[in-house]
Amino acid sequence: MNTENFGSSERLVTAAYVRQGAQGRRGHELLLRALLEQGKCPEDGWDESTIELFLHELAIMDSNNFLGNCGVGEREGRVASGLVARRHYRLIHGIGRSGDISAVQPKAAGSSLLNKLTNSVVLDIIKQAGVRTVTNCFVVPMATGMSLTLCFLTLRHKRPKAKYIIWPRIDQKSCFKSMITAGFEPVVIENVLEGDELRTDTEAVEAKVKALGAENILCVHSTTSCFAPRKTFLPLRTSTAPPNLVSSVNLVCIGVLHPDHLLKKKKKKTNTELEMFSYLSSELKKLADLHNERLLDTPHNPISLAMSLKNLDENNDVAVTQLGSMLFTRQVSGARVVPRGSVQTVNNYTFKGFMSHANDYSCAYLNAASAIGIKKQDVDIFLKRLDKCLKASRKGKEKSVNEICTSNTGTEQCEDQKIQT
Amino acid sequence: MNTENFGSSERLVTAAYVRQGAQGRRGHELLLRALLEQGKCPEDGWDESTIELFLHELAIMDSNNFLGNCGVGEREGRVASGLVARRHYRLIHGIGRSGDISAVQPKAAGSSLLNKLTNSVVLDIIKQAGVRTVTNCFVVPMATGMSLTLCFLTLRHKRPKAKYIIWPRIDQKSCFKSMITAGFEPVVIENVLEGDELRTDTEAVEAKVKALGAENILCVHSTTSCFAPRKTFLPLRTSTAPPNLVSSVNLVCIGVLHPDHLLKKKKKKTNTELEMFSYLSSELKKLADLHNERLLDTPHNPISLAMSLKNLDENNDVAVTQLGSMLFTRQVSGARVVPRGSVQTVNNYTFKGFMSHANDYSCAYLNAASAIGIKKQDVDIFLKRLDKCLKASRKGKEKSVNEICTSNTGTEQCEDQKIQT
Amino acid sequence: MNTENFGSSERLVTAAYVRQGAQGRRGHELLLRALLEQGKCPEDGWDESTIELFLHELAIMDSNNFLGNCGVGEREGRVASGLVARRHYRLIHGIGRSGDISAVQPKAAGSSLLNKLTNSVVLDIIKQAGVRTVTNCFVVPMATGMSLTLCFLTLRHKRPKAKYIIWPRIDQKSCFKSMITAGFEPVVIENVLEGDELRTDTEAVEAKVKALGAENILCVHSTTSCFAPRKTFLPLRTSTAPPNLVSSVNLVCIGVLHPDHLLKKKKKKTNTELEMFSYLSSELKKLADLHNERLLDTPHNPISLAMSLKNLDENNDVAVTQLGSMLFTRQVSGARVVPRGSVQTVNNYTFKGFMSHANDYSCAYLNAASAIGIKKQDVDIFLKRLDKCLKASRKGKEKSVNEICTSNTGTEQCEDQKIQT
Amino acid sequence: MNTENFGSSERLVTAAYVRQGAQGRRGHELLLRALLEQGKCPEDGWDESTIELFLHELAIMDSNNFLGNCGVGEREGRVASGLVARRHYRLIHGIGRSGDISAVQPKAAGSSLLNKLTNSVVLDIIKQAGVRTVTNCFVVPMATGMSLTLCFLTLRHKRPKAKYIIWPRIDQKSCFKSMITAGFEPVVIENVLEGDELRTDTEAVEAKVKALGAENILCVHSTTSCFAPRKTFLPLRTSTAPPNLVSSVNLVCIGVLHPDHLLKKKKKKTNTELEMFSYLSSELKKLADLHNERLLDTPHNPISLAMSLKNLDENNDVAVTQLGSMLFTRQVSGARVVPRGSVQTVNNYTFKGFMSHANDYSCAYLNAASAIGIKKQDVDIFLKRLDKCLKASRKGKEKSVNEICTSNTGTEQCEDQKIQT
Repeated sequence: MNTENFGSSERLVTAAYVRQGAQGRRGHELLLRALLEQGKCPEDGWDESTIELFLHELAIMDSNNFLGNCGVGEREGRVASGLVARRHYRLIHGIGRSGDISAVQPKAAGSSLLNKLTNSVVLDIIKQAGVRTVTNCFVVPMATGMSLTLCFLTLRHKRPKAKYIIWPRIDQKSCFKSMITAGFEPVVIENVLEGDELRTDTEAVEAKVKALGAENILCVHSTTSCFAPRKTFLPLRTSTAPPNLVSSVNLVCIGVLHPDHLLKKKKKKTNTELEMFSYLSSELKKLADLHNERLLDTPHNPISLAMSLKNLDENNDVAVTQLGSMLFTRQVSGARVVPRGSVQTVNNYTFKGFMSHANDYSCAYLNAASAIGIKKQDVDIFLKRLDKCLKASRKGKEKSVNEICTSNTGTEQCEDQKIQT
Repeated sequence: MNTENFGSSERLVTAAYVRQGAQGRRGHELLLRALLEQGKCPEDGWDESTIELFLHELAIMDSNNFLGNCGVGEREGRVASGLVARRHYRLIHGIGRSGDISAVQPKAAGSSLLNKLTNSVVLDIIKQAGVRTVTNCFVVPMATGMSLTLCFLTLRHKRPKAKYIIWPRIDQKSCFKSMITAGFEPVVIENVLEGDELRTDTEAVEAKVKALGAENILCVHSTTSCFAPRKTFLPLRTSTAPPNLVSSVNLVCIGVLHPDHLLKKKKKKTNTELEMFSYLSSELKKLADLHNERLLDTPHNPISLAMSLKNLDENNDVAVTQLGSMLFTRQVSGARVVPRGSVQTVNNYTFKGFMSHANDYSCAYLNAASAIGIKKQDVDIFLKRLDKCLKASRKGKEKSVNEICTSNTGTEQCEDQKIQT
Repeated sequence: MNTENFGSSERLVTAAYVRQGAQGRRGHELLLRALLEQGKCPEDGWDESTIELFLHELAIMDSNNFLGNCGVGEREGRVASGLVARRHYRLIHGIGRSGDISAVQPKAAGSSLLNKLTNSVVLDIIKQAGVRTVTNCFVVPMATGMSLTLCFLTLRHKRPKAKYIIWPRIDQKSCFKSMITAGFEPVVIENVLEGDELRTDTEAVEAKVKALGAENILCVHSTTSCFAPRKTFLPLRTSTAPPNLVSSVNLVCIGVLHPDHLLKKKKKKTNTELEMFSYLSSELKKLADLHNERLLDTPHNPISLAMSLKNLDENNDVAVTQLGSMLFTRQVSGARVVPRGSVQTVNNYTFKGFMSHANDYSCAYLNAASAIGIKKQDVDIFLKRLDKCLKASRKGKEKSVNEICTSNTGTEQCEDQKIQT
Repeated sequence: MNTENFGSSERLVTAAYVRQGAQGRRGHELLLRALLEQGKCPEDGWDESTIELFLHELAIMDSNNFLGNCGVGEREGRVASGLVARRHYRLIHGIGRSGDISAVQPKAAGSSLLNKLTNSVVLDIIKQAGVRTVTNCFVVPMATGMSLTLCFLTLRHKRPKAKYIIWPRIDQKSCFKSMITAGFEPVVIENVLEGDELRTDTEAVEAKVKALGAENILCVHSTTSCFAPRKTFLPLRTSTAPPNLVSSVNLVCIGVLHPDHLLKKKKKKTNTELEMFSYLSSELKKLADLHNERLLDTPHNPISLAMSLKNLDENNDVAVTQLGSMLFTRQVSGARVVPRGSVQTVNNYTFKGFMSHANDYSCAYLNAASAIGIKKQDVDIFLKRLDKCLKASRKGKEKSVNEICTSNTGTEQCEDQKIQT
């Protein structure tokens, strides 16, 4: 609708009502305008109606949606399946031009606009997250490993002599593989135990940089988040040259940091989230006490918790891994069981105690996290099921229980689940 | 997007491309404008993109989609389920005001506009279908029977003495029940056989009107379409007073006609439709010959065909109805088997030969129609399956075949179907 | 997916995970089974995923979605527009058979099943709402007036002598028109004032029934809900014969009641709803006091409130209606302004004081309601805008303010709104 | 629906109809089964109903859609916006596990299954396209350049000494940049002119391989498709070692070929496509003749055509590029105007005659293609608009015409377009 069309509408519906309707449209337009002018993440989330309207508006700016268009190119945004067209809100052309992802695509003004806005909004979010010095960014659909590889390849142009990457150990395969793929040699720095927590051995990092020569080191490659009992990381303030490359804040950003501007994590957790973490924490502690185990003391990890599985481990060496599959079968997702001493080879490098970030952590344990969106109900059901599994596990009763469950799959859920749901 | 927002977009994307995008939008706007100004059915159907854009534009004119609205009424178009909101394109308020369906709803300018346009477009279609004298119409979600009842109730205000409705027989229950519900007494006029065709006995109608007295008759209640071998109907040109009420041009209109303006059916059948009808007709004739049956000669019915089932009927009295269920089981939908002499009581009136529009039609028969959208594939598969069923039926083999089919449901389709699909 | 397909999946994905997936499906299936077996409204609402799965499952039971179907009927559920098909979840055939809305449609097992379930669930809801004796119901898309007309026509078969309908006045046009349309003469019973409240004059009803003779009366036609200051209604317990017909528990049911089973409204208002009503009530009272008006005392109306507009009415006779349009322009929807002494003619019957349910209610007033889904924000914004409008109205400043607002439509919202939104 | 639920349905709807419905479901299940068992691209495309059913079935196999699931991981597939969930058919978890994209994700059996099937189907398509020796593939969302870079990085492990990549010139930036990003030195092989066509100088390639030493060459990097007048490419059958790397058959595959198995392009063009290409070709030839230009003779390019712009180029050096923008403004998308002698620097390498694949092609020209899905209407409108633009361009009238067009943007389309649409 535009001014003329609103005018024509007054022939059919009382003018005052049409004006009211036009004013209603205006509300949505103002949101669009604010986004277009400021390029910042809106403080209040848009409702679906506004989002869909905007996407539709963008789509009809693309040539494949022009009513009078004739397309004689090799790629004209034609779609065989309406399903696919709708899924993409009819934004079919894609963005960029060959060899330049940030170039405006002439056939697709709407898609290009969406791309520019996306980058602008993500830049705003990164800045708000504390990385004030960032000046540009773009969003591409890349998984962790490839993104890191690309960063290393880019850094190589700046540090042509470099052969090594200093890597404070974090037991995540993509991180490790990405260095090999890019053609560098990872230098593993083992973590230091402090109480129950594992933290980056910053002294060892500094010593290694000195020993190998800063110019031979591409960067220090670390991470901001990981499972307890590893501490979340703060970039190093080394006197030496190599940049710190920090990955993950889950979906978003890969940033190369100079030693003197630190990422200030100001991830505002909402009250609900804080309450849920504290609830999970206290309840898991109670359960741990009940089963003669400990909630590991990891004050520097605000999302993930770990509970020891000492008894289980000592009595029966397969019981720990079996606990994992018991929880899985009972539709507990995300609870991660870490046995002691598992050995894993990644790209010819062998790691002892893989998954625990240390060669020989003091005990087997179970991770549980209070991530965004978790509900009290999740925590309660988790604890109830965990309690049952621990009991069954101790009594060695699991085998039979498990058999009943799986044999019933497809006809009846096991008793345990019927209670919960 | 409006002029300002397109302007703001030029900050992000080349101005020339944004202008092109705005021009793209313009194409859709012009279609909207034509509809709003002329209120007529567009000659070329709109594509989904334009339709959805328009619906979205209308929705944000309704108060329940205003971003700054506060609702303190008893009914504010709030929806518990997003599924429902989306299904209705967020047009939640409904139309009309209590007691007046055509009144503009102040809370819902968009919905009201859609309503006015719908009525206007349907009026245009009715006019194009040949009913030139119609001046107004409105669309309501009513089934056949209730619509007819309402028409009779309305006519009563104009003809207060009337007790009877003259009804040239058409074997469709809603038509009949509607007269009873409205409190009138139906006067059934049996059809006359002309060759294979049944046609309305207009002389009998005129005679009955004279006998009962025109002022005692509410109307002559007939229909424009029905299954072969009944002829499709033309309203009567009687010298007497009662209006002709003609129902069911499938989805659309109920009209009360004065004797002196006839409904000119100019339903343009597309080439494809004509081809399909003629293909079905000739192929069904071949099949009928093969099985020693006849394609009934019904030149005045341009959609529905009938093939005699004489042999089946004579040899085995349950075979005719069984043929129907055989076809049904083989996923032939819409083929209608009409046995001889079935008796049906509707609202205490008993009809002989119900379904055939006559007390004693000369043979049992099967109806097949070439309706809008039918494909050659439909006709071919139908004929193949019908052929098989007729053969099986004749040999009395059906029972066993049928058993195999149904017993396999859920694991395997019957051989016949595997071939087809 | 069925057992075989889950089996085939194990070729591609670990068997344990596929089993887990099958178990996940099982959860949805159990909900479907409960609904199919009990036919009752589920205690916990289904999530969208389950609803959509179920609708999809039903759709593929209809012949128009059979992959191997051939359709040779006159109506085969073919759809020209994919948009329409999707909007209806591909349930295209409709339900019922001609003349019988509750008959199963052979071409559409899925649609028929949905229809049966809908009726069953609605029956369950009506029972839960307190109408224990109801044994059957069906859902049809009918507006208030036509539904009532149909009820009256049905009752006529049971009470063939009846000419009158006793109608305790409720100022809603559909209710009134429906009686005229069905061919009956309404007998209006004026309401009685009790404090600020208007209630049905049950003594007058009984006297009228006696005077006219019970057999001449079709029914007593009343309603359960209306705007304050009218009391919500309870059906009468008369010793005389005519049934009580009670309409419009907003969306749902029309019921004919015998005098000896009362509708027990057990509409459970949730805590939030009760809180909101009490909040609106106390805040509106404060505002009324501030403006030297009164919140009318209407304890028997649990949804709608009324605030007097005495001062506005006395000083300026157009001010009351103008207040309505001022609120409307400021995107307050649902606030209903009732002036004194408005005269309205409906079907040749003239009503004084229309909208107020009484010939001469003591003052003009404004209605506001706390309906389902209202939020604190709605109440706050409403009160703020109402306050502004009352002030502007008193100072006669409205004209200018209003002009600014409307002249800016399309470019800028009025100051008032900018603050709110 | 499962067997039990169909059973329960028989309580509500005639058993025969429910069985028919179950059989209808069966049709869809059989398609799923065929896909799951064979993992091949179905010969007949599925209809939307089957696709959506399958996606829904997969989604409820993922833990985030389990009704009784409790999630205590750091990433549980929770989605803030229903819009996003629906867009992804509720498949939220993603696929793979850290560091291994082909690993099954335990939380997401459905997503994992979809991933495996996708890879399997794409493998089938690649094989059908003629690459019989391929044994494995996986689909990742990567643009051309990054995909190539990754291929080069992988090849490096096999050919550790290699420094050079032999690159038969193709003027597409991604191809070129990818070699630089991966850290290799491109060796450009200029094309040879044969009639109007440009073809790869295979002798020069062989000579260069010999000169540099096969072990120093990572690969010969070529392409299968490009704009006329460049010939589409066939991989080399060299006697020397380096593998041929052939990119980007539009969306699909990157393959490393050994010299002795050639890609047999058996891209079946449908009749419609062949007709359209031949129609575009003959009509463009006519137009070229009319304007005293030539349709370039490029028999080895089955998609793209080129028409000389000799006169335009000789008379006015900006006219050629202006023609491009004239076509763009008239909503002709994809028509590519190539001027002579444009110079472009990519990663410090300077190319003369960029866009034409040659330092000095004999004339300026215009590309038009008959790509998949093109309609006769596209061709007709294109030729009409091109004709107008060429005429206007020759008369130097463009400036004024263009101004009228753009100044009218937002209110009226230029005359030319009104005629077309």
